Amino acid sequence: MTAPAQPSFLLTPGPLTTSARTRAAMQRDWGSREDDFIALTASLCEKLLEVVRNPGTHVCVPLQGSGTFAVEAAIGTLVPRDGKLLVLVNGAYGKRIVKICQMLGRAYVELVCAEDTPVDPQAVAAALAADPAITHVAAIHCETTTGLWNPLEAVAEVVQQAGRKLIVDAMSSFGALPLHLDEIACEAVIAASGKCLEGVPGMGFVLIDERDLLACAGNSHSLALDLADQYVNLRKTGQWRFTPPTHVLAALHEALVQFEEEGGQPARYARYAENCRTLIAAMGAHGLKRVLPDALQAPIIITFLAPEDPAYDFKTLYDKAKDKGYVLYPGKLTQVETFRVGCIGDLRADDLARASEVLLDTLREMGVKMLVESEA
Amino acid sequence: MTAPAQPSFLLTPGPLTTSARTRAAMQRDWGSREDDFIALTASLCEKLLEVVRNPGTHVCVPLQGSGTFAVEAAIGTLVPRDGKLLVLVNGAYGKRIVKICQMLGRAYVELVCAEDTPVDPQAVAAALAADPAITHVAAIHCETTTGLWNPLEAVAEVVQQAGRKLIVDAMSSFGALPLHLDEIACEAVIAASGKCLEGVPGMGFVLIDERDLLACAGNSHSLALDLADQYVNLRKTGQWRFTPPTHVLAALHEALVQFEEEGGQPARYARYAENCRTLIAAMGAHGLKRVLPDALQAPIIITFLAPEDPAYDFKTLYDKAKDKGYVLYPGKLTQVETFRVGCIGDLRADDLARASEVLLDTLREMGVKMLVESEA
Repeated sequence: MTAPAQPSFLLTPGPLTTSARTRAAMQRDWGSREDDFIALTASLCEKLLEVVRNPGTHVCVPLQGSGTFAVEAAIGTLVPRDGKLLVLVNGAYGKRIVKICQMLGRAYVELVCAEDTPVDPQAVAAALAADPAITHVAAIHCETTTGLWNPLEAVAEVVQQAGRKLIVDAMSSFGALPLHLDEIACEAVIAASGKCLEGVPGMGFVLIDERDLLACAGNSHSLALDLADQYVNLRKTGQWRFTPPTHVLAALHEALVQFEEEGGQPARYARYAENCRTLIAAMGAHGLKRVLPDALQAPIIITFLAPEDPAYDFKTLYDKAKDKGYVLYPGKLTQVETFRVGCIGDLRADDLARASEVLLDTLREMGVKMLVESEA
Repeated sequence: MTAPAQPSFLLTPGPLTTSARTRAAMQRDWGSREDDFIALTASLCEKLLEVVRNPGTHVCVPLQGSGTFAVEAAIGTLVPRDGKLLVLVNGAYGKRIVKICQMLGRAYVELVCAEDTPVDPQAVAAALAADPAITHVAAIHCETTTGLWNPLEAVAEVVQQAGRKLIVDAMSSFGALPLHLDEIACEAVIAASGKCLEGVPGMGFVLIDERDLLACAGNSHSLALDLADQYVNLRKTGQWRFTPPTHVLAALHEALVQFEEEGGQPARYARYAENCRTLIAAMGAHGLKRVLPDALQAPIIITFLAPEDPAYDFKTLYDKAKDKGYVLYPGKLTQVETFRVGCIGDLRADDLARASEVLLDTLREMGVKMLVESEA
């Protein structure tokens, strides 16, 4: 178990393959109340706000735990107990916000569309017009269920026009897809360490309009997940209220330094888009079909339809590909059998080219016959 | 920021100084839904249950976040919405459980004693006899505020005799002070990765009587902090519901391997006790007084009274000691000025001997004159 070698490429939506430099940042122990850790937290928050081109309105509230902890914390802190949330659902992560509302006892209404269909901004406008009790809207930027890229700008516009507040779950898009607060009106943007920023998992963060956040004291259903209390303490002392995941934070900070060196969000997007094109071209040339058309496909995770061949079996494909060093992700669609391949993490186009070869070879070995073979 | 050297010894109650081997375990990325990570989680849970000599009644529920997240999750999951909690308070961590009850809207009653006084089991018995509505009792094993070792066995006995359930916050004692479930009746024991097990911070865990836990569905105020749901999913799939802190878990697993190699809890206790004796002897020989008598002092963290000299100032002592490689911890007592020195983490008696020299030298440099100098 000592210093095990990196055994495989993670073709998943996270945890991801990280760089050696990011992992090396976990080789130091930090005292969480020391000045240098306070400075590291402040620097991290500043970098995260730069990713979304904060126009000076928003502050960063880091939180221990996974992305879902940050989502629940944002809903519980920002939506008042007598507020009402419109949840835009076209996949598992929209549904999860509905479940959070149910657990917290927050009033909500769902606007559901199919998992291969983007949220319709006009339907959002109509829902808001029909129900004046709605105070907030929750949208998923990239729905990891499929890899679908929801039209966030248009949604934000109708939410703003209706005078409501928008909370964005940007878990699998943050740092890769453009989301600029100087262009899009969002009360809050939620993401986590172990996704497109290429840190390790263990903390989330919520970028929140400071004026709104300061008005949210007393909303939260939870001490640990109270972002208003977390922020007030952070602003006063520079420290987290409760022990932070110091090594995870140091890794995320180091990952952000590399993110900036690479060229920030546009460069990250370009690399992932090339990863995605490489994968799709190689798989498509052999007849593997995708769930989403190009126009809806975010270059984050690709959902392939499972080959319609009795020789196909996800577990076998998964096990064999893993033995060769590539970890796939199961499908999450309810209607059709699929598998998913992530394009994110410390991966480049040649990694995805090799990954595609491995997947195609493995399908051949399994005797899956529906592949279109190239001329050879 | 790349691979920074370990700059200092952390003489704090956590995060702690960890071993190079533990940190090296974070050099691999794990897919959180892979078989080998599922096996790692299962192995971790098994090792944690062995630490408390589980007689087969309890299961381990790991949770993302800091120790406080695990405490809130345990209270919210185990105390029914119409239950009532007796909280035994003699320091900041008892008070934090009171705050959690207030945030969650759980009925509670406090049994408060002074910060230098252990919980009185007879007072607990009286409180339980006086209020039949109380369903659960929450106790702090070692109160980090002072380093006070509460009489857990005697408390457990009166709680059991009164037919109530005991929830133990063993955050700063787990793995170091004896707590054996084959001898002590506890419904739940709560601890975290970054304390006496010498992992890195980022996850907690609760060891819970399985029969009780399975009856707790629907109690929780939170999705993320619902230990019943976390456990049901873990038992069914071997996986965490939401992305786990994979590197933190791998580090804790590796720390537990070393814990076992060292000789488990008795050996860990013996090492910390020697650390503690070394520190107290060196500081005491120069007139530095402690808040607690030996009988109440757990060998976890020592609270020293600040020297009564105008030249003394905690910030100066802290900064100067840190420059020399030793990180202190501020006092947390409300009545008297104190500072704290932790004895836990990957430290041995000679580290504490050097730490004591550094602290004493620094006090001399500061011109603090009330020290008793040895004959020289």
